[in-house]
Amino acid sequence: MSKILDKYNDIEEIKEMSIDQLNLFCQEIREFIVMKIFKTGGHLASNLGIVELTISLYNIFDFRKDKLIWDVGHQTYVHKILTGRASDFDTLRQYQGLSGFPKREESNFDIFETGHSSTSLSAALGIARARNLNGEVYDVIAVIGDGALTGGMAFEALNDIGGGTAKVIIILNDNQMSISENVGGISSYLYKIRLAPKYIKIKGGIKTTLKKFTLGKTLAKALKKLKSGIKEIMIPNMLFEDMGIKYMGPINGHDIKEMSKVFKMARDSEESVLIHVITTKGKGVEFAEKNPEKFHAIGPFDCKTGEMNSITATTYSEAFGEEAISLAKADKRLVAITAAMKYGTGLNKFSLEFKDRFFDVGIAEQHAVTMAAGMASNGLKPIFAVYSTFIQRAYDQILHDVCLQKLPVIFAIDRAGLVGEDGKTHQGIFDVSFLSHIPNLIIINPKNILELKNMLRWSFFQNEPIAIRYPKGSDDASIELPPIITIKKGKWQILSNEGNIVIFATGKMVQRAIQVRNKLLDIGINISIVNACFIKPIDEELINYFVNKEYDIITLEDNILHGGFGAMVLEYINSLDKNTKILTLGFNDSFIEQGNVDILYKLYELDVDGIIHNIIKFSHKVSLEGEKISKSDLL
Amino acid sequence: MSKILDKYNDIEEIKEMSIDQLNLFCQEIREFIVMKIFKTGGHLASNLGIVELTISLYNIFDFRKDKLIWDVGHQTYVHKILTGRASDFDTLRQYQGLSGFPKREESNFDIFETGHSSTSLSAALGIARARNLNGEVYDVIAVIGDGALTGGMAFEALNDIGGGTAKVIIILNDNQMSISENVGGISSYLYKIRLAPKYIKIKGGIKTTLKKFTLGKTLAKALKKLKSGIKEIMIPNMLFEDMGIKYMGPINGHDIKEMSKVFKMARDSEESVLIHVITTKGKGVEFAEKNPEKFHAIGPFDCKTGEMNSITATTYSEAFGEEAISLAKADKRLVAITAAMKYGTGLNKFSLEFKDRFFDVGIAEQHAVTMAAGMASNGLKPIFAVYSTFIQRAYDQILHDVCLQKLPVIFAIDRAGLVGEDGKTHQGIFDVSFLSHIPNLIIINPKNILELKNMLRWSFFQNEPIAIRYPKGSDDASIELPPIITIKKGKWQILSNEGNIVIFATGKMVQRAIQVRNKLLDIGINISIVNACFIKPIDEELINYFVNKEYDIITLEDNILHGGFGAMVLEYINSLDKNTKILTLGFNDSFIEQGNVDILYKLYELDVDGIIHNIIKFSHKVSLEGEKISKSDLL
Repeated sequence: MSKILDKYNDIEEIKEMSIDQLNLFCQEIREFIVMKIFKTGGHLASNLGIVELTISLYNIFDFRKDKLIWDVGHQTYVHKILTGRASDFDTLRQYQGLSGFPKREESNFDIFETGHSSTSLSAALGIARARNLNGEVYDVIAVIGDGALTGGMAFEALNDIGGGTAKVIIILNDNQMSISENVGGISSYLYKIRLAPKYIKIKGGIKTTLKKFTLGKTLAKALKKLKSGIKEIMIPNMLFEDMGIKYMGPINGHDIKEMSKVFKMARDSEESVLIHVITTKGKGVEFAEKNPEKFHAIGPFDCKTGEMNSITATTYSEAFGEEAISLAKADKRLVAITAAMKYGTGLNKFSLEFKDRFFDVGIAEQHAVTMAAGMASNGLKPIFAVYSTFIQRAYDQILHDVCLQKLPVIFAIDRAGLVGEDGKTHQGIFDVSFLSHIPNLIIINPKNILELKNMLRWSFFQNEPIAIRYPKGSDDASIELPPIITIKKGKWQILSNEGNIVIFATGKMVQRAIQVRNKLLDIGINISIVNACFIKPIDEELINYFVNKEYDIITLEDNILHGGFGAMVLEYINSLDKNTKILTLGFNDSFIEQGNVDILYKLYELDVDGIIHNIIKFSHKVSLEGEKISKSDLL
Repeated sequence: MSKILDKYNDIEEIKEMSIDQLNLFCQEIREFIVMKIFKTGGHLASNLGIVELTISLYNIFDFRKDKLIWDVGHQTYVHKILTGRASDFDTLRQYQGLSGFPKREESNFDIFETGHSSTSLSAALGIARARNLNGEVYDVIAVIGDGALTGGMAFEALNDIGGGTAKVIIILNDNQMSISENVGGISSYLYKIRLAPKYIKIKGGIKTTLKKFTLGKTLAKALKKLKSGIKEIMIPNMLFEDMGIKYMGPINGHDIKEMSKVFKMARDSEESVLIHVITTKGKGVEFAEKNPEKFHAIGPFDCKTGEMNSITATTYSEAFGEEAISLAKADKRLVAITAAMKYGTGLNKFSLEFKDRFFDVGIAEQHAVTMAAGMASNGLKPIFAVYSTFIQRAYDQILHDVCLQKLPVIFAIDRAGLVGEDGKTHQGIFDVSFLSHIPNLIIINPKNILELKNMLRWSFFQNEPIAIRYPKGSDDASIELPPIITIKKGKWQILSNEGNIVIFATGKMVQRAIQVRNKLLDIGINISIVNACFIKPIDEELINYFVNKEYDIITLEDNILHGGFGAMVLEYINSLDKNTKILTLGFNDSFIEQGNVDILYKLYELDVDGIIHNIIKFSHKVSLEGEKISKSDLL
């Protein structure tokens, strides 16, 4: 039983609690989060780390008027609990359930939606500038992690905030982690600050601090005159001040009293302020504190020991990592790059085995791509492993720095297609559309894990920019498909050639196409299946073959239709000026919500039955002209 | 007559010259640049500012092995002159002529191609890491402007360089400008440094500096112990050192002796170094020094007075700026944003008239977009004016922060279509392809300047994300087209309805379509022309009309075909399952080189004759089936 949480009703109550009550409340919230997430899965460690920080913010600010923006957004569970959504946590991240991220339609307290890293400072500054122009008075607060701070756009925003035109309060939640350990100069800098003597730098604070150093009053006064200099001797906190932003900290992110005091000062300041708060990811739950990376985002687990329901099938990410190691053993030109996703992309083993040839650049996809281009221009063969949704950040760099110069960089694009529970901001359904119109880029979409490995190997020996996209998770072991004997650029694989309808399927959708074929076979209908493993270039010769034989053509992909694979096939066939009938299947022009991927595929009619339904509709149209399959055949 | 330049042959000669000779050489190079650019046009002020800096680099480093990467790349004229390309300057920026940017195929001294800002540090680090893994020994030097430093990816790279795994030498060319005056915290910081006492911070340098301050020897020694502290009292140069990068400077970027000395120190350093060099844009040429922004990138001009050949026709950019002012007068919610392109985008007058409602965020497109989203979420109506090629940087932010939240941000996308002389890195031929698959975004492409104004006005009163794209330059006054009486979302305009072929043209290509129609009329052939002013949504009703009347359909756009406007029309018509014949005209899958746009349009068969030629080929095919136009009709 939770003494406080059970009765909690409104954010105003927080301000009335004593520090002891607030601490108890935090404990209850922690227990609540662990109990809920062990059933639903979700982002555990980051939310455990931010309980006192969130409570302290609500203790000092008034979020009925003040505005709070959460960077990355997966650290908002406490915020959601405090703003009337505790009872929805059983549906967390499920289809039509509570979002794992801020959602404007979910609550008025969700000011701005975030999913990708490093956007909060820009949003906050925009909101603050609007406030000023609207003649309104309230505070705008952005909470950003030290990991997110390495993303370039956060720096662009700091630079603009430092210009001083609108007050923003920045809470730097420094937990010494992005998803992996942090890297680079900023991280070392923050580490240095943490080791320095405790020192809250505020107006009039110099004297107090100096007293702690047992210096006499006179000397203290004398030094006060040298304030701008002496600050530096005390603590190297100038980075933010150099940029024109007042710095306060570092302070303990699990001490509500201390945070409340400093937040008040920030509230009373007239300029923008950055408050450096030190927190521990996974705080208060032993297994999560010890393994914050493992418990960053998780499936259901045992809430006492932290043991997760184990999955034994090899994932695409693991297979990618293994093949990268195998290639790296044979060829020392291979280097691997990640943007703070060593584990997620399957590169952890690689990073241990090839320490010198592994580069984690932090949350910095733009830099990762151009750095890879630099490496490729100087004799290396870099592989940048990245999620589909995150490489959206580096569109310009892929186009300019890699493809325009035709440099042999391999993009290993993980989590392509639907990812499920993370929802709209994380579905990998745009990559084919934003990559396939870029000249000089080869795009590969292997049909299964074995093909991913073979394609990666093949790609390594080409000398051009190549993107290989593959989905989250594993293969269904029951679907066996023959491998391609000899991989050739732009050449597809015929898996079955029967009837007069052919599905050109790409990626894991080939597996679904085979299921569709089998189900149709059961009712006596034959269709052909082609593994369109190359999205670019497409196999014009094979398309010609089917066109000339007057097959009806269906394309099948897990990407948005416009600009996608099917569109490429359609554009090519249109140029042939034949009367071929074409049906393109994929996602229509919309963002795809959160939920189990099976539910979502069904919803968008891309599950086996949905595809068959679409084939029926298509064939019905066709049959009116050509009598190929009639609807009644299929029912 | 140039005493040195005329005889100059090889970069080795620079090392043999005295400082006086080098200074004379600089003078000759300046004269050469002015004389050439007054004929061809080009980037004047930035290249004049960097003469001594380039010479000093060549004086100290050996670029037969050392590698030099130029950020943005338009500051490489001196570098090109020094590396055997002086005689090509008459062809600068012309079709098949010398590029205005580094080009790997042009010279072995062009290590990495750059066109967009802020990429050099990433590329340099990649090259340096490859060097280390290859076991090679040489220096990698990146030259980056203070403007480019505000681009987020430069910061991502600094963070990674600061991690310390590979030595890179960074030359910060601080000319206090990007294209406009610089903005933000970093700029103020650099300004503070420039005002501080001259102080080259190097090992053992403390003592010397302190002597200048006439302090006694003993005090100097005592303070030396406090070195890390005292540095700060002297000069606030800690930003880069905080990030783990050794700082040297500021030094005079027109003093070859001083630069050579410091470059030597950097060469001998074992860690990464940032050298802060102060230069004057336009240096040595009075009119360029006085108006560096005007002379940033220019057309041909009078080399004595700097008077440019005046163009009187209103440009799209000017019309945009005027309409923005007119709207802003009527509605105070309107705010305008630029990423360091106040003049280029036509917002200069706006910035003077509405100082509080104008935001120049520096070279920071990602931040600009999300900041705009923040503003829109809080009641404002922001317009972000930006070039097509530069908004490539903000693809993810447009998708996530604006369109996913359906926030009413207007993107005024200037320089869409071909821009000409800047070449591959600057052509605006991708925007339709990377924007049109983003859900919730309306895309408008007005047929002429008047329509741009009307569409901007219409867009302002919608409440959704809207992109309006329009080309560089002006309209041809001889082509008069009727305005749209009432603009409706997704509704096109029929300009002529004759014959049984229709061209759906978009943007300024409508003007070309009319010319095509007129030329065909002369030989007695009628075609219909539709102004497809909305690229998204397309006018399905009007398409249905033409489809049902069995017209053949031609789409015409100045964008890459895949994922473009024509593809949208094709995808829609395919879904109708009719036997409509469609020809899509636009750019094929390739980067478009530099050159006069008329030459380029001709080359890609998108000039009037090229389009007619394509219609002939198409009609010929069609005529075999339908007898609409036979080839002989057209010849």
